[in-house]
Amino acid sequence: MEASEDLWSAGGAAAAAAAGFGAANVPFGVARRRGGGGGAFCATRFGEVVVDLTALERAGLFSSFQHLGGRDAKDGVFRERAGLTHFMARGRPAWREARAALQRLFATSESVLRDNAALRAKALVHHADVDMLLPTGETGPRGYTDFYSSRHHAENVGEMFRGARTLPAAWLSIPIAYHGRASSVVPTGTPVRRPCGQILPKGEKKPIYSPCRVLDFELEMAAVVGPGTELGSAVGARDASAHIFGLSLMNDWSARDIQKFEYVPLGPFGSKNFATTLGPWVVTLEALEPFACAAEEQSPGPLPYLDEGDARRTFDIDLGVNINGHSACKSNYKHLYWTAEQQLSHHTVTGCSLETGDLFGSGTISGPGKREYGCMLELSWQGSREVALGEGAVGGTRTFIEDGDSVVLTGVARSADGTAAPVSFGECEGTVLPATPLKL
Amino acid sequence: MEASEDLWSAGGAAAAAAAGFGAANVPFGVARRRGGGGGAFCATRFGEVVVDLTALERAGLFSSFQHLGGRDAKDGVFRERAGLTHFMARGRPAWREARAALQRLFATSESVLRDNAALRAKALVHHADVDMLLPTGETGPRGYTDFYSSRHHAENVGEMFRGARTLPAAWLSIPIAYHGRASSVVPTGTPVRRPCGQILPKGEKKPIYSPCRVLDFELEMAAVVGPGTELGSAVGARDASAHIFGLSLMNDWSARDIQKFEYVPLGPFGSKNFATTLGPWVVTLEALEPFACAAEEQSPGPLPYLDEGDARRTFDIDLGVNINGHSACKSNYKHLYWTAEQQLSHHTVTGCSLETGDLFGSGTISGPGKREYGCMLELSWQGSREVALGEGAVGGTRTFIEDGDSVVLTGVARSADGTAAPVSFGECEGTVLPATPLKL
Ligand SMILES: [Ca+2]
Ligand SMILES: [Ca+2]
Ligand SMILES: [Mg+2]
Ligand SMILES: [Mg+2]
Ligand code: NI
Repeated sequence: MEASEDLWSAGGAAAAAAAGFGAANVPFGVARRRGGGGGAFCATRFGEVVVDLTALERAGLFSSFQHLGGRDAKDGVFRERAGLTHFMARGRPAWREARAALQRLFATSESVLRDNAALRAKALVHHADVDMLLPTGETGPRGYTDFYSSRHHAENVGEMFRGARTLPAAWLSIPIAYHGRASSVVPTGTPVRRPCGQILPKGEKKPIYSPCRVLDFELEMAAVVGPGTELGSAVGARDASAHIFGLSLMNDWSARDIQKFEYVPLGPFGSKNFATTLGPWVVTLEALEPFACAAEEQSPGPLPYLDEGDARRTFDIDLGVNINGHSACKSNYKHLYWTAEQQLSHHTVTGCSLETGDLFGSGTISGPGKREYGCMLELSWQGSREVALGEGAVGGTRTFIEDGDSVVLTGVARSADGTAAPVSFGECEGTVLPATPLKL
Repeated sequence: MEASEDLWSAGGAAAAAAAGFGAANVPFGVARRRGGGGGAFCATRFGEVVVDLTALERAGLFSSFQHLGGRDAKDGVFRERAGLTHFMARGRPAWREARAALQRLFATSESVLRDNAALRAKALVHHADVDMLLPTGETGPRGYTDFYSSRHHAENVGEMFRGARTLPAAWLSIPIAYHGRASSVVPTGTPVRRPCGQILPKGEKKPIYSPCRVLDFELEMAAVVGPGTELGSAVGARDASAHIFGLSLMNDWSARDIQKFEYVPLGPFGSKNFATTLGPWVVTLEALEPFACAAEEQSPGPLPYLDEGDARRTFDIDLGVNINGHSACKSNYKHLYWTAEQQLSHHTVTGCSLETGDLFGSGTISGPGKREYGCMLELSWQGSREVALGEGAVGGTRTFIEDGDSVVLTGVARSADGTAAPVSFGECEGTVLPATPLKL
């Protein structure tokens, strides 16, 4: 029995669920078959299998639905070139309809796809045989914003650089953010070139041009925008979730020495715009419902436009970073002071327009413990202590990231009492290539 | 004789040249007929006339050229939906060829278009009958970066906010910049809504949600990227001009009170992302050649990747800002410490990719004189002195921008000795609409 057929067996469904890719998940992404000449297609994942939604749509499987598209490539929501853009723009009714339709299609009793070998051969592919692309397809998002919403992270930075666990003056009033560089967002699996730039070596007065000496990851999650907003119109935090399609893993690679020299007064620039790696799958808020939990209490309370009232909540999502297969840190999405809804509201408050597929990085997600920090800067405390990789340092030690290192972010939502099946975000991977300085 | 026919008369050509839109200019832009149902088209301007390059290309006028496209909409460089993107991506040989072809087409002796009334009717339209769009067409640029490259401006800011004419530590080493918000870039003529956001009133400890009370313009020019660059590859300053299509006027609207509260430590965000207005035309570097002049000397000298050597130069372009038709300030593009070539090189130094149509705002361009400052913050010295609009304050006075104000940026390159015809950038206009606070 081929792996794809096994999905409809009780054992196959249970294995998929245990791996975090069962009927409880139904994540969305864009994939391309490896090696072949095929184009990008919209996808979901069940167990080990990536499902080609573009092919299923063309086969007419969604044509009777209310919020999804027809069989025509022009009407469909799962088009090739635009990735998930049209689907994400449709909003929550379409997302719920697609989720239910896919859960039904892979139910053990459902024969439509199970018994259609030709369509199965066309639409199902093993996850190891695809490369994942960005949710907006080959062109990537137009907007990418990075927030700074973890209090543990911001206080650690304060202690390291200002000598006290103080926050920037506006930090408790505003979900502080900067505009990132959308052209530098790459999908999981893309190698990352160590950047060169201006750094000021300790004790020197003049900067030098040099490969980055203190390369870092940042463990983040990205919220992906569904329906956009108009320029000049703002969205209150209570209305923001209608614009949030889901969450994905994100590694905001950072060149700490370049950042330190450049960032006053306009914020990080070249130290961040060489690469930001997005995870393979966007998990919808629907799939995360069973893992909803209270968000950190806010004191002082936020201004009314940022006040979520009773709707305020976050999700319990276990996060981790492995370097070359060995654990560097563990954290959790719930350690964020500002929610994605508040971030979205603040992003629009002065009138900025949002577009479908735009990304909001959460900011580095650090927990309270010393092995719960979301970047090497904090884990190694500015390089002052070696971080053991894996139990007993079986993976060696690091202060920062070295050439050849493979950095993998993982995320799984799990229920403490085991009543809900886990929901996985997959792996967000990047391997560091050596710098290639400009020859002048 | 209709205005368009008059272009081929000696008098018409002389009038066009005197107005800065003669054969010496040949700017590029994207336009749409007002009121009609027509789509966007690529355009240039001669005198009072906007020329539809998309129509001329379809009529086969460029099909024999080496670097331009064929008659087919798929091959052409002047397509409807992508605006000038394909043309800008072709690089300088194509730009030079198009410039020469258009100069020839409007020469007094050239009959191809002059004597073709049908094509003239299709392709020529009075400038008052079109709206200008962004160079990349209806979708706008994907990348927008704003630099901070005028020393007078940076020193004025230092004096106002830090009490001394000091520069940020990296200012003389790096053309400092932040990523702006591409979705908020709008074409000239788009009304600008006064933003609401968080401000900290003087003497207060808690921010309030309020309409911006100190709305400002910033007199800038934008460099428009032609051929892009690959992620992970850097461009030295000496090689940068191959990637610069030309320059346009740009108004980086700024909400000073929102900016002041939010910008530490990650830079400006909501205070800038409500609107940035781009001018109507991109003037190519070819058209600016006669106005080349020495750029400010740099001390200390830049690092090798930023060193332009003998190629270092800038352009003498008179700039001005009018509020409701009355002069607020006058400046000049040559007052920039960092050139667009250095900005482009620095933007790529860590590996950031650039895309065709990306915009680099120069930063506010201030000259040394008190009426040469490029924004109200400096002109009114933080609101401490009224700025007279027009000679004898015929236009009233301002400290900052009021609702209903029409702010117009102008730019004309002129030769001091009158040997070269002037080259105009047209007008970059925006009128401020009153704020519409969120109802919660
Ligand atoms: Ca970050
Ligand atoms: Ca600016
Ligand atoms: Mg990044
Ligand atoms: Mg702006
Ligand atoms: Ni597997």
